[in-house]
Amino acid sequence: MTVATPDLNDIYGPINRDMPLVEELLESIKKVESSALDRMLSHALQGKGKRIRPALVLLSGKFRDYDLDRLVPLGAAIELLHTASLVHDDVVDGADSRRGRPTSNAIFDNAITVLLGDYMFASAAEMVTRTGSLRVTRLFALALMKMTGGELDQDAAAFDVGRNTQQYLRRIGGKTAALFANATEGGAILAGCSEEEVSALRDYGYRLGMAFQITDDVLDYVGDEKEMGKPAGSDLLEGTLTLPGLLLLEREPKDNPIRKFFAARRNRKKHFERVLESVRDSDVIEDSIAMGRSYVDKANEALTGFPDSPAHRSLVQLGDYVLARRS
Amino acid sequence: MTVATPDLNDIYGPINRDMPLVEELLESIKKVESSALDRMLSHALQGKGKRIRPALVLLSGKFRDYDLDRLVPLGAAIELLHTASLVHDDVVDGADSRRGRPTSNAIFDNAITVLLGDYMFASAAEMVTRTGSLRVTRLFALALMKMTGGELDQDAAAFDVGRNTQQYLRRIGGKTAALFANATEGGAILAGCSEEEVSALRDYGYRLGMAFQITDDVLDYVGDEKEMGKPAGSDLLEGTLTLPGLLLLEREPKDNPIRKFFAARRNRKKHFERVLESVRDSDVIEDSIAMGRSYVDKANEALTGFPDSPAHRSLVQLGDYVLARRS
Repeated sequence: MTVATPDLNDIYGPINRDMPLVEELLESIKKVESSALDRMLSHALQGKGKRIRPALVLLSGKFRDYDLDRLVPLGAAIELLHTASLVHDDVVDGADSRRGRPTSNAIFDNAITVLLGDYMFASAAEMVTRTGSLRVTRLFALALMKMTGGELDQDAAAFDVGRNTQQYLRRIGGKTAALFANATEGGAILAGCSEEEVSALRDYGYRLGMAFQITDDVLDYVGDEKEMGKPAGSDLLEGTLTLPGLLLLEREPKDNPIRKFFAARRNRKKHFERVLESVRDSDVIEDSIAMGRSYVDKANEALTGFPDSPAHRSLVQLGDYVLARRS
Repeated sequence: MTVATPDLNDIYGPINRDMPLVEELLESIKKVESSALDRMLSHALQGKGKRIRPALVLLSGKFRDYDLDRLVPLGAAIELLHTASLVHDDVVDGADSRRGRPTSNAIFDNAITVLLGDYMFASAAEMVTRTGSLRVTRLFALALMKMTGGELDQDAAAFDVGRNTQQYLRRIGGKTAALFANATEGGAILAGCSEEEVSALRDYGYRLGMAFQITDDVLDYVGDEKEMGKPAGSDLLEGTLTLPGLLLLEREPKDNPIRKFFAARRNRKKHFERVLESVRDSDVIEDSIAMGRSYVDKANEALTGFPDSPAHRSLVQLGDYVLARRS
């Protein structure tokens, strides 16, 4: 991980001029009659993320007819859906802060935050219909089903050491990769790509999403607490087993510190620290990173049929970015 | 209220044979990979309601080309959306039971029930795209925005005596009437009705929904506890002012028992009982029922342009049913 993180502004080069249109559309949904809702939406939409998903929509749209009137609503809809799902995840996890900012549920209470998330889901659904494509709208609804299914599975599997890597990959496929795939597939459809091209861009998006989530899960163990805005091992503390932990379990199935931590009723902190040590002392982090890398390689393979172009190069660079990011 | 409640089976006459298709479609969404989700969906979809919303879709479809392949998915989508919103409402209200059955949040806990509701919303969105109509899909998303906006407003207005009847009507317009309107408007669009007919059926649905919610709010004060499955005054207890209470406040703005109840820190039960007595001793219940009646009259007015038909008669009878129902 000694490579410098590529700069997102450079990667977004071919679409840098158009990304503000996505922001404008996101801003516009805050303008509602109710002042209470207005205030809540403003807070929920304030934390400006990296906007990777809208960028994927626009970049995929570059492969044929780049029609901003259709691509921008899809980009905004997907970002809104992503943000809404974070709002509900924070309720579900009882999280007080995310990336250094208080969560909506910490400010407005859980109950009303559920409704806030619902409103954002509804707005996202309305937004996606502005693409004028029933097919894209339908894929969007299916992506939300996969996301929620993945989250539910994660919740059902909490503190369960009987899960394996295969199940983990299926879960993050739903939780994260499905929406990445929706961004690239939807962008390709709206641009009028051939079915073969649509399929290639969907595969690219899905695999990039897998690498993105695996990197997230690695950073949860080894990331910098300040940059991440949360202490190391947060997932594990909530009972969520991600790739590094699962690999550790597979290698030492019997006398494993994770088993002891999940079973412990006393000295939980001590057992928790021991898991972190074991993970760091073993090669499971390295192996997890390698698996992320292989997903990026496979993502790039999906693009081999396309001729060289600025958007093509951006997508390849985005793979490097996803692996190299620190937060 | 001495009139016998009309029988729903009779009212649904023109569509009785087709309503099971909606049930089948609703059943089909339970079949998912995850057994945990399967169990939760089964519980959430178990309480078979009156299915008024799907009935409105099918009856509206009878006014032109009755195409079940398009109408049934809309009926199922709207019922699913309605059920999902109840699942989240129960989380928001911390309700333990609904119509005598334990709520999902009482069984599975709040956190996971939020995700269950999300999954149901997503399924509803997927279902509506099966109508093949982007216009209907878009209206569906807008209806969900109105519903959630109405619920948020209700939450924001809790224990606030500064609200008036006008604001109440707007709120129930979003919370309830919007989805009724979506059912009739959507059914009309899918059947290929003219714009004038679509507009008439939308108006009918909206006004029927207003009468439905007003009757609900009257029953909350004067309904039978056993039939309703909740004690009288439940809304008030949660700080929600509905039509009877608002009328009482407008008539006795100063020395009002509602003011005292909302302000009370001690003897809340005594103050609460006093509100119930005042409501029952005054004519606000009668006046609320009259307002419900006038919405039904206006609903029927919207239908005057249509020739006589079994579906037309069913819609008129549905108005009587909505007013006469006891639970």
